[in-house]
Amino acid sequence: MAREIERKFLVAGDAWRRAAGEGQRIRQAYLASGGPAEIRVRICDGARAVLTIKSAAPGLSRAEFEYPIPLADAEELIALRTGGCLEKRRFTIPADAGLRWEIDVFAGTHQGLCLAEIELASPDQAFAMPDWLGAEVTGDPRYYNATLARTA
Amino acid sequence: MAREIERKFLVAGDAWRRAAGEGQRIRQAYLASGGPAEIRVRICDGARAVLTIKSAAPGLSRAEFEYPIPLADAEELIALRTGGCLEKRRFTIPADAGLRWEIDVFAGTHQGLCLAEIELASPDQAFAMPDWLGAEVTGDPRYYNATLARTA
Repeated sequence: MAREIERKFLVAGDAWRRAAGEGQRIRQAYLASGGPAEIRVRICDGARAVLTIKSAAPGLSRAEFEYPIPLADAEELIALRTGGCLEKRRFTIPADAGLRWEIDVFAGTHQGLCLAEIELASPDQAFAMPDWLGAEVTGDPRYYNATLARTA
Repeated sequence: MAREIERKFLVAGDAWRRAAGEGQRIRQAYLASGGPAEIRVRICDGARAVLTIKSAAPGLSRAEFEYPIPLADAEELIALRTGGCLEKRRFTIPADAGLRWEIDVFAGTHQGLCLAEIELASPDQAFAMPDWLGAEVTGDPRYYNATLARTA
């Protein structure tokens, strides 16, 4: 089990793309959300699949459990989903102090939405704020992936 | 992914115990139930843990996905459960034609309840009915483990 401490922002503009590579294609869906545990199936680049369980504790810090699963299982589990299937491309950009930004560019129903996340070691850890960051949306349920999946 | 085809019965009497060994102690809880996927965490004999996802398709046949997980994860996941934690002892008894009965003797809130299940290769497969079988409860939602966990 890991503990995930993240801050999340909208992204304003494309300046971040200079440091970004090809990114990876992500398809993900939820088997459960809105209860005490959120259960996600994710397929990366059509090749690797992972089952993730996160506690629904609100705020910055959540327990997270990740298990690699066979790709064929993942496809069948996605068919059991509640809500829709999110499609996005994820770009990873190095940040100071060994941190990194993960930038998700959504496709499909949420095309045009772009979110940046940074994972921290502690909730009050300082980090540089790039120019291309927009408003912070940490803890805003509208921008939870589980919420976005409900309308995907 | 396996497909699970089961028939379930109440158990009348103790005659089955002659062929039963020690059984194994099971603790299990649900991270989600009532939706399209039922997600269960089970710990056997305090030593082995498994995460199981079953489709919520009604009737005899359900898709089932099982993943072994670390025991420490299982304990933390059980803490995230919805509903209660079921406690039971499972006894396995050989039946004809390579089949077997699994008899669950519940403890705790459901003490006194005893259910027998047989897993079949097809929904219409014939099998011998031992004298100690009570009423069939296949498909009866009152006897789903997920239902029992809600009131455990």
